Amino acid sequence: MQAPKKAVIVGAGPVGSLAALALAKRGWSVELYEGRPDMRLASSKAATGQRSINLAISHRGIAALEAIEPAAAQRFLQHAIPMRGRMIHKLSGELDSQLYDRDGQCINSIDRALLNEGLLEEVTASPNIRVFFNHKVVAADFNEKTMTIHNSSSKTDFSVGFDLCIGADGSYSVIRRQMMRVVRMNYQQEYIRDEYLELKVPAGRDNYGEPTFLFDPNHLHIWPRHSFMLIALPNKDKTFTCTLFAPSAELDRLSSPDSILSWFKLYFPDAARAIGEKLLVEDFLRNPRSPLICTKANPYHYRDRAIILGDAAHSMVPFYGQGLNAGLEDVRILSTLLDGEGVSSAASIYDPPNDHDRRLANALQRYTETRHEDLIAISDLAMNNYVEMRHSVTQLSYQFKKTLDNLLYSLTSPQVVSLASLTPILAGQPYAASKPEGWLPLYTMVTFRPDISYATVKKKAARQATILTGLSWIGVTVFGAAGAWLMWSTREMVLDLFAHK
Amino acid sequence: MQAPKKAVIVGAGPVGSLAALALAKRGWSVELYEGRPDMRLASSKAATGQRSINLAISHRGIAALEAIEPAAAQRFLQHAIPMRGRMIHKLSGELDSQLYDRDGQCINSIDRALLNEGLLEEVTASPNIRVFFNHKVVAADFNEKTMTIHNSSSKTDFSVGFDLCIGADGSYSVIRRQMMRVVRMNYQQEYIRDEYLELKVPAGRDNYGEPTFLFDPNHLHIWPRHSFMLIALPNKDKTFTCTLFAPSAELDRLSSPDSILSWFKLYFPDAARAIGEKLLVEDFLRNPRSPLICTKANPYHYRDRAIILGDAAHSMVPFYGQGLNAGLEDVRILSTLLDGEGVSSAASIYDPPNDHDRRLANALQRYTETRHEDLIAISDLAMNNYVEMRHSVTQLSYQFKKTLDNLLYSLTSPQVVSLASLTPILAGQPYAASKPEGWLPLYTMVTFRPDISYATVKKKAARQATILTGLSWIGVTVFGAAGAWLMWSTREMVLDLFAHK
Repeated sequence: MQAPKKAVIVGAGPVGSLAALALAKRGWSVELYEGRPDMRLASSKAATGQRSINLAISHRGIAALEAIEPAAAQRFLQHAIPMRGRMIHKLSGELDSQLYDRDGQCINSIDRALLNEGLLEEVTASPNIRVFFNHKVVAADFNEKTMTIHNSSSKTDFSVGFDLCIGADGSYSVIRRQMMRVVRMNYQQEYIRDEYLELKVPAGRDNYGEPTFLFDPNHLHIWPRHSFMLIALPNKDKTFTCTLFAPSAELDRLSSPDSILSWFKLYFPDAARAIGEKLLVEDFLRNPRSPLICTKANPYHYRDRAIILGDAAHSMVPFYGQGLNAGLEDVRILSTLLDGEGVSSAASIYDPPNDHDRRLANALQRYTETRHEDLIAISDLAMNNYVEMRHSVTQLSYQFKKTLDNLLYSLTSPQVVSLASLTPILAGQPYAASKPEGWLPLYTMVTFRPDISYATVKKKAARQATILTGLSWIGVTVFGAAGAWLMWSTREMVLDLFAHK
Repeated sequence: MQAPKKAVIVGAGPVGSLAALALAKRGWSVELYEGRPDMRLASSKAATGQRSINLAISHRGIAALEAIEPAAAQRFLQHAIPMRGRMIHKLSGELDSQLYDRDGQCINSIDRALLNEGLLEEVTASPNIRVFFNHKVVAADFNEKTMTIHNSSSKTDFSVGFDLCIGADGSYSVIRRQMMRVVRMNYQQEYIRDEYLELKVPAGRDNYGEPTFLFDPNHLHIWPRHSFMLIALPNKDKTFTCTLFAPSAELDRLSSPDSILSWFKLYFPDAARAIGEKLLVEDFLRNPRSPLICTKANPYHYRDRAIILGDAAHSMVPFYGQGLNAGLEDVRILSTLLDGEGVSSAASIYDPPNDHDRRLANALQRYTETRHEDLIAISDLAMNNYVEMRHSVTQLSYQFKKTLDNLLYSLTSPQVVSLASLTPILAGQPYAASKPEGWLPLYTMVTFRPDISYATVKKKAARQATILTGLSWIGVTVFGAAGAWLMWSTREMVLDLFAHK
């Protein structure tokens, strides 16, 4: 009997961990290498926090977890705070709640560390996975199928062999860079003009002295200010994590406590009050200003032996909350393709190596071919959504179109499509609805319909947008005509009024 | 008295060598590091030849050489073979000469090695430059202004300090990669669908047994075959270097001597005859198939201490023959900006370091700001020119527009603008003609007018193309109307002819 094939996965974030679980379930022997210390250790808690603290996980992410670790998916949701919609904080102090979904479906604010730690617990419990922290990849030789790894604890280098290497090592992926030495990879990285900075809204106290949320916890809060914006997501400890997105030049001007305070009081008076002046200035001056990078690659794989997933393959701007969802979906799609090729199930792992390799190569090739258009689509949608979040949501024309959008949705798609109803349909296939029926708002498709690929979403949304614009013009014309008629027919009365004055 | 500032230049190709000469002339102490052996040594002649053997140097390249090493520029031209135009080889065997310029200006076929060796001779002769071959950069620390270099002869690493680092180390630049660690650099690399492969047309024998060219030496020969093409440039030894550009899939099918021969006889019968069957098959099977990569970056510099030039900053596809011309022009522009800032002339090198650094930072910043649009423009023009070379040149509509283009040129721009007349005008400024007057064909502007920036060229050409298309339609309408009138007025005669039959 042949030994199981060996996979080396680089990066023990949520995507790398889920990929390890997916392969382990399919009979692979998995080694998972992570450059940072184990985040579950108390000693490393303080050191982390380079990345944003919480994130919005929605149906695509959950569907991926369900497909690979159903029990885990349910457990994570218990730690999440559901957000039903956006809460727009106007400059006037007025609040405007815009629901995400007609049927009350939510996105989920979850602590990134909590999600990651939960997955690492599953990883550690799996007999097929060995995980190594404080281990950085130095180089990879994809022709020899070996990798040089540096153990930062013992300060020694060693070599490991692999049959399949998965790079899930983030935006600045070493595996991607090593692959570019042997693959003719198209690659693009673009920094947008804006940076982000994280702040914290502390918990308040209720009348019994218990901690309480200072804003509605079941919304994603947005302070849209046209060229910049502040957002806030709730945490289980009743705090909010705020993120300020603004052009570098705008942030450059805020270097003194006075300038920071007066700027916040001018643009975000309620947020400034909730954060508190002292904490606001402290956090603003101490916390890093981080860049926003968008990367695109193609192909994602090399022959039968290497593939990049998650941010290593496609960093996107965070304005659709889909970065991690797309990364987890990568793992679901790859697993499906591996199964579809009949390659990596425990039964077929003992096929002759050449046949196995050929079928593995086919699965990776099909991953690149089918996944690229989806990833470009969501990356572009995320970029476009920045303008929507920081500017369009405040516009009357946007709200009019949104109303029309929802009306058409109600008229043509009366049934609720819940995640629970989709999960069995999705089992074993990349996407279930290649031609989704009826009218579906863009946000609904991106966020609540993992059965529709991002590429299909983008195409359908573009067609619908054309129709919406047409209908809006008709609407404007009809209202305009009605108004003109009204003015004409009341003309005499008005003239009379003036005449009598 | 303060010691002169030290520049480390990485890459001793034509761009790196010219940059070394430019800085040395301005009082810098220059160290030039090259990973490969000295190409002037007999022992290394055989080892080189990774890159294409010859190239077309035109006015921008020559203007850059003139600005930095006037004597050298004249010397190189003596080794070059002027090409007056394109020679189109039709499938029928017919030849069609299309001149590049109304006034007989030429581009120049020159041996890449000869140009490089000539510049290296100047470099070696300069007392301010030390050149090191077999020295590869391992890493650069731009905050500390130091670089780790590996001496491949002695197999040792050592560290050098610098005030300014110039990366002229080609498409796969190590300096660019090292800069990306500290600079938020937008970067893009794209492999096009096609590959290239070099072949050789040997010299023939004339009636006296002397070597002779088998095609007209004063043309760039093109065999346009729509989805692929062959080109040939003359060499001083009466041979031609041929380059075949074709989709990878097309080349994949040519794996046996028979398939190669029958394919060549079908599409390039005269070239196959000139090359000879034996040499053709040998070269085709032995020579590497190389990819075509297009890279774009922005910014090109880091603070007051690093900049990338030439292919390290902008690899483009070779279809406008502008890759090296643009690289040499980079050096001219940078030199001009350094002078303009009054920084690096021998006189100002002794300014206080802070002031010097500030002015150097300004010059590098202005280089990025002013040069980026130009480099994107020529990169895009080069990509577009592939379709022109392999397909459009064979179309009647193209030839009609070309004729109209030249007619408008003659009518609006009667004077000859030669390189000799431009050189004094260009001295000390990036470009002289920010608003070029009259009608100028695109090819003329790109190739023969270094006083016009690539970005200006692209914009003016786009405006002219719109006018040309409009005029073509008017032409078609007028001819069509005249034709219809002719048919109508001769109708009776024709009917009579038929009636009498």
